[in-house]
Amino acid sequence: MNKAILIIQCPDQKGIVANVSDFLYKYQGNILEVDQHVDQEIGMFFMRAAWELDSFGIEKDAIGPTFEKEVANIFGMNFELHFNLPKPRMALFVSKLSHCLFDILSRVYSGQFDVDIPLVISNHLDLKRVVTAFRIPFYHMPVDKSNKAEVEKEQIALLKENKVDFIVLARYMQILSGDFLKQYPNKVINIHHSFLPAFVGAKPYHAAYERGVKIIGATAHYVTEELDAGPIIEQEVARVRHHNTPTDLVQIGQDVEKVVLSKAIKYHLERKVLAYRNKTIIFY
Amino acid sequence: MNKAILIIQCPDQKGIVANVSDFLYKYQGNILEVDQHVDQEIGMFFMRAAWELDSFGIEKDAIGPTFEKEVANIFGMNFELHFNLPKPRMALFVSKLSHCLFDILSRVYSGQFDVDIPLVISNHLDLKRVVTAFRIPFYHMPVDKSNKAEVEKEQIALLKENKVDFIVLARYMQILSGDFLKQYPNKVINIHHSFLPAFVGAKPYHAAYERGVKIIGATAHYVTEELDAGPIIEQEVARVRHHNTPTDLVQIGQDVEKVVLSKAIKYHLERKVLAYRNKTIIFY
Amino acid sequence: MNKAILIIQCPDQKGIVANVSDFLYKYQGNILEVDQHVDQEIGMFFMRAAWELDSFGIEKDAIGPTFEKEVANIFGMNFELHFNLPKPRMALFVSKLSHCLFDILSRVYSGQFDVDIPLVISNHLDLKRVVTAFRIPFYHMPVDKSNKAEVEKEQIALLKENKVDFIVLARYMQILSGDFLKQYPNKVINIHHSFLPAFVGAKPYHAAYERGVKIIGATAHYVTEELDAGPIIEQEVARVRHHNTPTDLVQIGQDVEKVVLSKAIKYHLERKVLAYRNKTIIFY
Amino acid sequence: MNKAILIIQCPDQKGIVANVSDFLYKYQGNILEVDQHVDQEIGMFFMRAAWELDSFGIEKDAIGPTFEKEVANIFGMNFELHFNLPKPRMALFVSKLSHCLFDILSRVYSGQFDVDIPLVISNHLDLKRVVTAFRIPFYHMPVDKSNKAEVEKEQIALLKENKVDFIVLARYMQILSGDFLKQYPNKVINIHHSFLPAFVGAKPYHAAYERGVKIIGATAHYVTEELDAGPIIEQEVARVRHHNTPTDLVQIGQDVEKVVLSKAIKYHLERKVLAYRNKTIIFY
Repeated sequence: MNKAILIIQCPDQKGIVANVSDFLYKYQGNILEVDQHVDQEIGMFFMRAAWELDSFGIEKDAIGPTFEKEVANIFGMNFELHFNLPKPRMALFVSKLSHCLFDILSRVYSGQFDVDIPLVISNHLDLKRVVTAFRIPFYHMPVDKSNKAEVEKEQIALLKENKVDFIVLARYMQILSGDFLKQYPNKVINIHHSFLPAFVGAKPYHAAYERGVKIIGATAHYVTEELDAGPIIEQEVARVRHHNTPTDLVQIGQDVEKVVLSKAIKYHLERKVLAYRNKTIIFY
Repeated sequence: MNKAILIIQCPDQKGIVANVSDFLYKYQGNILEVDQHVDQEIGMFFMRAAWELDSFGIEKDAIGPTFEKEVANIFGMNFELHFNLPKPRMALFVSKLSHCLFDILSRVYSGQFDVDIPLVISNHLDLKRVVTAFRIPFYHMPVDKSNKAEVEKEQIALLKENKVDFIVLARYMQILSGDFLKQYPNKVINIHHSFLPAFVGAKPYHAAYERGVKIIGATAHYVTEELDAGPIIEQEVARVRHHNTPTDLVQIGQDVEKVVLSKAIKYHLERKVLAYRNKTIIFY
Repeated sequence: MNKAILIIQCPDQKGIVANVSDFLYKYQGNILEVDQHVDQEIGMFFMRAAWELDSFGIEKDAIGPTFEKEVANIFGMNFELHFNLPKPRMALFVSKLSHCLFDILSRVYSGQFDVDIPLVISNHLDLKRVVTAFRIPFYHMPVDKSNKAEVEKEQIALLKENKVDFIVLARYMQILSGDFLKQYPNKVINIHHSFLPAFVGAKPYHAAYERGVKIIGATAHYVTEELDAGPIIEQEVARVRHHNTPTDLVQIGQDVEKVVLSKAIKYHLERKVLAYRNKTIIFY
Repeated sequence: MNKAILIIQCPDQKGIVANVSDFLYKYQGNILEVDQHVDQEIGMFFMRAAWELDSFGIEKDAIGPTFEKEVANIFGMNFELHFNLPKPRMALFVSKLSHCLFDILSRVYSGQFDVDIPLVISNHLDLKRVVTAFRIPFYHMPVDKSNKAEVEKEQIALLKENKVDFIVLARYMQILSGDFLKQYPNKVINIHHSFLPAFVGAKPYHAAYERGVKIIGATAHYVTEELDAGPIIEQEVARVRHHNTPTDLVQIGQDVEKVVLSKAIKYHLERKVLAYRNKTIIFY
């Protein structure tokens, strides 16, 4: 089904819902989903609406301009308009660990993710065989301090060339520079293997073991320049016990990581995530 | 804050949201919460809207008739209009077990539940001291097969006299008759100590133990004539292990029961539950 | 590391732990793990002990007979002795759904499962490409009512030929006969896509949707002749809401299924499961 | 039932389990529970054993000395010997919030906690009525910077006078001094209203709201001089969403806090907690 998805944010005021729904009604929009959120503290209104495109009374290209003129301008709205087709294009960055990669490929294979993966980039060769078995181009781009800036330039060129919409760091283990991130604001999803904000940085499972926590977790978030501090999209946890070694925590945690990352990807794919002030609104 | 809460159900059709939100906008309604749900399978639309009453452009008593004339009649809507004040009046039915009772009283005490409890009814005297310590009238009404019809009549008289809005069976352990339930449709909340539909009926923890399940649960539901088969409001679970005895399951389960029942009461109190076709829509 | 694993069950009596630990101490066993469980209700004792094999004072082949003579006979014990090497051999039975298969292959790939998979059997061709990409022999064996007995004979022959230790039904969707199961008692692991004993049989997610449950689940169990009634190894759940369609439940549930099944396989592989009286003791 | 409970820790070595179980067997100990744990990383062995006291072959007072001579001295063990009777004596420190207090009193009332509460201490009068309704002495001891040292002295005197075994800070909101804590090492249990180590210190729910986490938690731990950094006994979490205000988080979190604190108390009461190197081993 062809869908249009409208994401709105503006200062809260009376009449927004009425005007947006009047707009959709007037042009015969068959609404599929609609959600609102008001952040009372900061006085902001957020909305997501999805409707069938085929029977809608405005041509695809004219929807944005028409909405802008008839509604958005009146309320001072920022809005984004998305369509589910053509499919979004997702790049994967991986390193050596396979669990998140397999989980993502499994969902693409089964049709759960409606996405194209034009390429996988890795600083190691370990996962090349798996990726190519899925007939996805695999780019081996080793990176270290000395060549980082240069490699990132090549990566960006590759991403642009492949018309990539967003990037998933499926345990990539490298930090992207601010310059890179500016190209893809709120479009780089990372999985951090801790329950943020606990255990920022490297080796979080070992830190969790040292602290003696009874529950570990994983966090999917949009990447920003500050390490592990971007807007959180999804989190999940698992219980551990005193007899679990750091190696156990790694294994238990991987089951959490892959599920959390895949949920975050799904929300992002379906345009259900709205990032605002370093937090996210998830309309699920 | 004085609030009005509108609950709507009607066949799904274009323009419902637009018309309802136009109505609220037109009369200067300051919307606090609004949620919709469309059940695509049966083609039904459900909505809940809450707004500030004091600044609204229609007198309290005129809201219902005005909405009926201007909106509901056009779309063939069933609707309910509620106000958060005066506080709803809740009757508690208990037996011997104290954990759910304490949990509810604790929330009333701390102000988490905005409710009046005009009376507690029990078939045993065990909990009288606790209830009266909270200055709530306690009615000891022993019931058995021989006097059930008669006692239920007295109970209904008491409930009416006390203008009770809804009833919570906080581990009451007695089955209410169909005649009783007809007086309070979708207004009697029970906590069943299993993850329904598993382990209907008596001694569910022992049945769970016998079956060797790894997780136990509890279910809050509206009571209907068929035992443990009414619309489910909330469920929660807890993990158990092979070394847990039936007595352990009872203790572990009680922690789940009390939290689930209190969540269900809260949803009901805030008019967030919409029962339909033996299921519930929970607008939380 | 070479390990020996001893699993014991016998009527509970004084001195069991003392005698078993004396035995291991006497022959210089470096104990890695030891767990006991007493079922007070039925008066039975259960124990699992694992120790390093290389430094042990009895030859591998003599451990069983020696333990039998010196300890087991005195207490009337049933015991099993296992070694982690050579690796256990696991057969997978699949149908069309890929999520559990991918999850298992992912764990074998990453080294989390210490197991050999000599073959995958399926009644459909859908998953052949994936399986063969992992260089595992794939047997397409279509089965229906008319040829079931015959096909099962061929399957058993294949399993024997491949020295299969245990079988995992990774959403196989076919019911194995009692004759088949007699060959592999407590050695066939199934994943049922509900929180058993709720929703036995076909289409449990649709049944869960109809009942309006707020939580769905999955159950890994040993297969016995009675459908979905064998000893439960592991269960897990996920929360659902009123807006989730049956299709949503299927997707949400698949994440639960794959994790539960893989946990059950891991427990089985590490000989941490002891089935008794249609229940399991899990020494994790 | 009269029980003896033995808690052991010593460097790991062969023969410990054999010798301890021989000791219990020799004196006709009817073992109820036995658990071991080896921390491979630091080479330490930990054990907990519980047995029936009445039928045991050594007089209550002689068990410790006999065990010391016959077993502990050989292996260089630290050990503690506890008896379930007379009941442990627990002091509660509270402030204004009632949810944890009610939950604890509810469990004492229902017999789930086998404990005596000789006194409740508070820096506010708010909870006096509830406490005295349970016929427990309530001490109002206002504390501020100027009188803290003095008040703590009075508190310690009161605790000693009442033969208090351990202290529970049920949302006490005050920091105890190092001098105070030295009197009760690993005997002061606090509930911190965050998923530690995230959100140490004051107003953790507000901090969690600011960070936009999707899950909040609570942590019960033994109090040490470093704020919120003592050995963690138990943790639990609850899911939150973007529409939850800080006030919602407080309410959702309170349900987690009370369950976590009560679990920690139960473990402590049953001598199932072994604190070691700022972590805990929980033999449940």
